[in-house]
Amino acid sequence: MPRKQLHLNAFLMSTGHHEASWRLPESDAGANSDLEHYKNLARIAERGRLDSLFLADSPVLMGDPGRRPAAKLEPTVLLTALAGATERIGLIGTASTSYNEPYNLARRFASLDHVSGGRAGWNIVTTAGADAARNFGLDDTPLHHDRYRRAAEFLEVSTKLWDSWADDAVVADKEAGVHARADRVRAIGHTGEFFRVDGPLNVQRSPQGYPLLVQAGSSEDGKDFAARYAEAVFTAQQTLEEAVAFHKDVKQRAEALGRDPEGIKILPGIVPVIGDTEAEALALDAELDRLIVPEYAKRQLARTLKRDPSELHLDQELPDDLPDEDEIEGAKSRYTLIVELARREKLTVRQLIGRLGGGRGHRTFAGTAEQVADTIEHWYDSGAADGFNIMPAVLPSGLEVFVDRVVPILQARGLFRTEYTGTTLREHYGLPRPANRLFDTVGTGEGHLGIGLAPAEAR
Amino acid sequence: MPRKQLHLNAFLMSTGHHEASWRLPESDAGANSDLEHYKNLARIAERGRLDSLFLADSPVLMGDPGRRPAAKLEPTVLLTALAGATERIGLIGTASTSYNEPYNLARRFASLDHVSGGRAGWNIVTTAGADAARNFGLDDTPLHHDRYRRAAEFLEVSTKLWDSWADDAVVADKEAGVHARADRVRAIGHTGEFFRVDGPLNVQRSPQGYPLLVQAGSSEDGKDFAARYAEAVFTAQQTLEEAVAFHKDVKQRAEALGRDPEGIKILPGIVPVIGDTEAEALALDAELDRLIVPEYAKRQLARTLKRDPSELHLDQELPDDLPDEDEIEGAKSRYTLIVELARREKLTVRQLIGRLGGGRGHRTFAGTAEQVADTIEHWYDSGAADGFNIMPAVLPSGLEVFVDRVVPILQARGLFRTEYTGTTLREHYGLPRPANRLFDTVGTGEGHLGIGLAPAEAR
Repeated sequence: MPRKQLHLNAFLMSTGHHEASWRLPESDAGANSDLEHYKNLARIAERGRLDSLFLADSPVLMGDPGRRPAAKLEPTVLLTALAGATERIGLIGTASTSYNEPYNLARRFASLDHVSGGRAGWNIVTTAGADAARNFGLDDTPLHHDRYRRAAEFLEVSTKLWDSWADDAVVADKEAGVHARADRVRAIGHTGEFFRVDGPLNVQRSPQGYPLLVQAGSSEDGKDFAARYAEAVFTAQQTLEEAVAFHKDVKQRAEALGRDPEGIKILPGIVPVIGDTEAEALALDAELDRLIVPEYAKRQLARTLKRDPSELHLDQELPDDLPDEDEIEGAKSRYTLIVELARREKLTVRQLIGRLGGGRGHRTFAGTAEQVADTIEHWYDSGAADGFNIMPAVLPSGLEVFVDRVVPILQARGLFRTEYTGTTLREHYGLPRPANRLFDTVGTGEGHLGIGLAPAEAR
Repeated sequence: MPRKQLHLNAFLMSTGHHEASWRLPESDAGANSDLEHYKNLARIAERGRLDSLFLADSPVLMGDPGRRPAAKLEPTVLLTALAGATERIGLIGTASTSYNEPYNLARRFASLDHVSGGRAGWNIVTTAGADAARNFGLDDTPLHHDRYRRAAEFLEVSTKLWDSWADDAVVADKEAGVHARADRVRAIGHTGEFFRVDGPLNVQRSPQGYPLLVQAGSSEDGKDFAARYAEAVFTAQQTLEEAVAFHKDVKQRAEALGRDPEGIKILPGIVPVIGDTEAEALALDAELDRLIVPEYAKRQLARTLKRDPSELHLDQELPDDLPDEDEIEGAKSRYTLIVELARREKLTVRQLIGRLGGGRGHRTFAGTAEQVADTIEHWYDSGAADGFNIMPAVLPSGLEVFVDRVVPILQARGLFRTEYTGTTLREHYGLPRPANRLFDTVGTGEGHLGIGLAPAEAR
């Protein structure tokens, strides 16, 4: 019997996930605004038959623009451009439920799904940080729990809008002069705490019905949200034990809500640093860490920890009196991950900066292609992951070496596809096309998301 | 001495601008959601060396979905996809200042400008209509004048965001570990009546500096807005005399604000219906009008006129007691154009519906390729236009015949380019790259827009 296949996502980020990658002689320091760079990455990933590409995002200039390439093309625009440069690979973009209107965003993802032939995915984020809030008329970030309540309602509205056209609405009857049947396109009349949206959407139901719904927060609110709405979860896990526990936790939460646990794919991040020998890989990793400018990184760490930079000393451990996650209104799970990593491994600030600089809290693994394939297989077989979010330290070279040397090993072991078997992102992940909740038309899935509509609303 | 060149924009709309075009045997009734259809149109327009493509938009399902293809892919997504299918032609998309946040929209247009190599244009609209308002938590459309005040502030914020990176900000000094110079990227600290936006933008200054700024409202507020901010104006003009008066009016308003009148290009719409003979063209036009379903069109007309459909009679003229433009809070100039057209030509409701069905108030011209070229040249030479917004009644055939038969005549007469001479949309229109108002870096234009910054703000 063939083995169950794992899923691989290429997380694209300018010259690579290591913050100092742009300083390597090989790196194109203008890559972050260069479409050709991203097209090249997308084609490499597609050559490797990866499930999808992924772009992170926040509507704010993140961090110090001196430190690393900080500007980012807007993800729905960049992914649309990449759709034209590829044929099969999925296209997952991050967008904020706190700083968008559902009508506009639902429409853009539906449009991307149409132009890409069913390859769109939406990484749903609530956007932590006062600096982002201050680009949208607010003084500070809304409370964590409130952001998640808004996100839930945003999803309710978006899915209703995507369902506001029946799949069979367009009849295009030239003889009778009827383009779409009026009874198969309907207003959604949504009135909630955060939004009032009449609808219908002005885009027809898209090839996938909904874009693939992805989530990446690992706080309690984040896990609840994922269990209810997400079909794929990107997560940062430093150890196998934590990853197994997280995987089990999210699947159980989903199951408790009546969902099939197979309908939610958990993909921990991994930052592979690959060499011909383990020593070569470790040397590249060390060279990257050496290129980090510690002052920038210390400033950033201080911000995350809500401390003044002068309270952090490069060759000492973190202060003892840091607040609990409960007291943090920002990116809760990221805060806890950093503090726990530092405490567990008794890292100095300088060492912590090195670890974070590599993958921003994701697990760095330096070794040969064989060793990388081994750790992926081991985590997969241990129930820690349904696949991986591949975050090469250096781009494009790190993605190239992953695709050309790690993927063939995984394929030879029967763990990964050798050809695409589907055309849509949902098909790559083995996930159903959602049934339309507002019209009783054909869908391959039934109520697979924890999105409830009162029976009266559903007709 | 060579003649001054006119400018041509291809206004793309599913199967064509005639509302019944989708009912022709030749039409692809699914064209409105079909990327391949739009790619084909874009390539035809580029083959004709046209300045730009244009997509209209409103964040609402417009009109009755039975009547004509009503769903529309979101313009920034569709134009990004078309950027990948073309090389030189400009890409102008409509977006609303009433239902977007400036940070998000400024970023999307900057991103489109980056991925297209400097081909982005933004048609700035304030979006009339209660139905659109009800997709964004409002009961009714904001007052016309308030919408324009918000639009003006939206432009102030957007241009500051586009200027928040100096053109020379990125130094990418790998040795020193400095990617961008901190003193060449700055917050904008905007606080106004409608928006508070800290900035800076998280996209570097784009190839064109700003997207080409386009405007299409012809009310008093609209003309004032155009005179202040627009670099190209799309307008509906039914007669040569009205077009000359409008052209002069807008240029004078711009001049009064200290702008070069050459820096604002006026492009009336024309709906060419082209045949081998005039009789053939008129027959196609009549066939299209015959395919209009009058009930749909009457309902729409009644909405525009704020009347009950039962008060309109197909074979009678409009009622006498219609309100003045001043009393209309919707699309003022469109309202006036319709009423004046009906009164001037003593049209019955059925005849008026035919005229509006052809080009929604734009001038339909049925004739041979030679006759179409003649009318274009005549309007151009009469000072009615700096170019034309080409709105083929049927697509793709109407664009094909325009490009293959009308454009060569205009080229032979020395009125239109035979090859692109520039690479950016601004270059096609002969318009300067805006200087950066927040940093004193190189730009080919100086203060060419009526956007004022206090001197203290400008450094």
